[in-house]
Amino acid sequence: MTSPPINRERLQQRLDALGDIGADREKGTGRTRLALSDDEKRGRDLVCAWMTESGATVQIDQIGNLYGIFPGETDAAPVATGSHIDTVSNAGKLDGCYGVLAGIEILASMKEHGMTPKVPVVVIAFSNEEGVRFSPDLLGSRVIAKEMSLQDALVVESRDGKSFGSELQRIGYAGEKDPWRVLPRQFVELHIEQGPVLEAQQCDIGIVHGVQGHSWWQIDIEGCANHAGTTPMQLRKDAGAVAMQWCGDIRANALNKKLPAVATVGSFTLSPNAINVVPGRACFSVDFRDADDGKLREVDALLQRQAREIEHLGFTVRLRSLSRAATVLFDARLCDLAEVAARKNKASTITMMSGASHDAQMMARICPTTMIFVPSENGISHNPREFTSPSALALGAQILSDVIWSLARET
Amino acid sequence: MTSPPINRERLQQRLDALGDIGADREKGTGRTRLALSDDEKRGRDLVCAWMTESGATVQIDQIGNLYGIFPGETDAAPVATGSHIDTVSNAGKLDGCYGVLAGIEILASMKEHGMTPKVPVVVIAFSNEEGVRFSPDLLGSRVIAKEMSLQDALVVESRDGKSFGSELQRIGYAGEKDPWRVLPRQFVELHIEQGPVLEAQQCDIGIVHGVQGHSWWQIDIEGCANHAGTTPMQLRKDAGAVAMQWCGDIRANALNKKLPAVATVGSFTLSPNAINVVPGRACFSVDFRDADDGKLREVDALLQRQAREIEHLGFTVRLRSLSRAATVLFDARLCDLAEVAARKNKASTITMMSGASHDAQMMARICPTTMIFVPSENGISHNPREFTSPSALALGAQILSDVIWSLARET
Repeated sequence: MTSPPINRERLQQRLDALGDIGADREKGTGRTRLALSDDEKRGRDLVCAWMTESGATVQIDQIGNLYGIFPGETDAAPVATGSHIDTVSNAGKLDGCYGVLAGIEILASMKEHGMTPKVPVVVIAFSNEEGVRFSPDLLGSRVIAKEMSLQDALVVESRDGKSFGSELQRIGYAGEKDPWRVLPRQFVELHIEQGPVLEAQQCDIGIVHGVQGHSWWQIDIEGCANHAGTTPMQLRKDAGAVAMQWCGDIRANALNKKLPAVATVGSFTLSPNAINVVPGRACFSVDFRDADDGKLREVDALLQRQAREIEHLGFTVRLRSLSRAATVLFDARLCDLAEVAARKNKASTITMMSGASHDAQMMARICPTTMIFVPSENGISHNPREFTSPSALALGAQILSDVIWSLARET
Repeated sequence: MTSPPINRERLQQRLDALGDIGADREKGTGRTRLALSDDEKRGRDLVCAWMTESGATVQIDQIGNLYGIFPGETDAAPVATGSHIDTVSNAGKLDGCYGVLAGIEILASMKEHGMTPKVPVVVIAFSNEEGVRFSPDLLGSRVIAKEMSLQDALVVESRDGKSFGSELQRIGYAGEKDPWRVLPRQFVELHIEQGPVLEAQQCDIGIVHGVQGHSWWQIDIEGCANHAGTTPMQLRKDAGAVAMQWCGDIRANALNKKLPAVATVGSFTLSPNAINVVPGRACFSVDFRDADDGKLREVDALLQRQAREIEHLGFTVRLRSLSRAATVLFDARLCDLAEVAARKNKASTITMMSGASHDAQMMARICPTTMIFVPSENGISHNPREFTSPSALALGAQILSDVIWSLARET
């Protein structure tokens, strides 16, 4: 029995329509739909309407996750897919929305073609995946996975000083459903890659076998601020110079020795940050990521040794661990199923780790999970220029449909 | 005939008393006496009173420079010394004030000992040397040297939106004297070094034979912002990485090849400056200084070549010249005179270039000029921790007294 054929025009129209909500007037073509904002409420309203139109019953849980439940022959544990519709500031229209709308497209197709799965199929739109307005990120799936209690999540404060619970009430999305009452039997998330690997390898589909771990550090180096004109080079204690040298070493290790797979210095500030003053202080962040947790432990230890070496040069160094997450591995059988579906659709594939965080890494704690990636043009994401061609989006959605249908037909 | 013996206790008391004006209550031991502020007016009042008490006639010119004129046997062109009493924010008490108060100390000593110079001796307190509240710096001496017209200087706007002329009127220091009517026959400025060289060489006195030139640049590199987790190292266009590497090359050239004598990256910013985003843009400043203008031209050209190389790697580079000043050389005979006076006082000396800007570099355009430096503990300046021992301050003031007296006794 063939799987629900997705309607690529409708999928594209809905991506465009949802992408119009929260459109930034000032910044051109982006949109900003931060979690639990008025614009995100309008996005939720639209998604709920499309779920209902597609034959699903909409439920909302106590942390605001939306569930579009398409009935099966039995009431057994459902097969689930989904992602999120909250965005970062000045975002593209695909991140998260693609996974939710492709899921709804599968339900719509089942309804149109009178197809009934054996078990229910659920499309989930998770609350606050991005973590921009409320920290931590992945909040909705985090509560489902019991990585955070509902009580703790409801009192999380936004950067504008509102609690998550009160904002859920305000926009009318504080549901009554228990977040962990109906656990899915499997979860498959479809997402844009948000990186350049698929495009660089001219590949249609990424079969995602896990999310790589990360280790984030904040580093603070104190030297001595001095007059840039009167202080000879060899008498300086230039915190900026020693910090930049260290950042260079960190990147060279990642580039040449793969220790770790990727290392990024994303933020860097000098003090006093004046043109004619030798920097007395430098602060910077390091983001290490690797699928091998052993390598992360190795670079963490290396960072500590490098700090001691710099202290021996007469600087004060403070290291602060900001975040540490172990690698999450997805379900091998689900990855194989996605591979088979891709081949059936004549798509070229590679298996890859996700470098970014996704709700799937939380769902992997409670049920077999995998992800499917489609290419991102130029690897650009979190940016209005985020783009994937309509045909690539349709291909990914059809492969997801095949996977979900084959799971929902199993007993 | 011996020179006026300075009174080190009185010099120290006056440094302390002037240093108390504008004392920062919040920041501990510093003081803030920005040009033409209420606190600087109080400082001017005190300086005028001390000039008068020391037997000088006080005159004020149209740009607010104060002149304490001690009469000589004739009305010929005077010998001049002096510096400034405006400060940066949260400053030490020596920068500028030391030169003005040591000059007043010479007048006071001449009066006490009934000594009469052949020509008048003038102590000048120049307006707005620091350039913090009003830009450009060296404003009072700049107008005297006709490097800026009086008209242009009077309409310079402060960072709080007031014109220099209206602020001079407000504090009662808009004088009537023409800034370039009475030109001195020589000018000698006594100053703290504001750098670590004298201390490192265990030397009492720096005989300053000039002010090194500088070339200031603002550099802007654009690469591509990308997700720190999903973008492999070799597919990045990391503007921060390439900027830091460039900064390292700039410093290494100065350190190893003296090209130029000193090079500083004082300000550096990344964009978007987020822990998990590969920097798409980096902006930084470069401050080159060298006594050899040829070397400055060489590093300027090298910077342009490096920019082209980085553009070939696929980045966009913008270079903007912020400021360029040629080296100023002081009068050799005056340097020799200062050297002789130092030896007479059993002071060890080195000859050196000033790395910082001083009013003397403007005065050098209109008359033979030199400077005398005393050591700065740890090379610290523009900081409440700025310190020179009372005995070192007294030694510098006595050497200045010898130089001024020998000039003022010449015909």
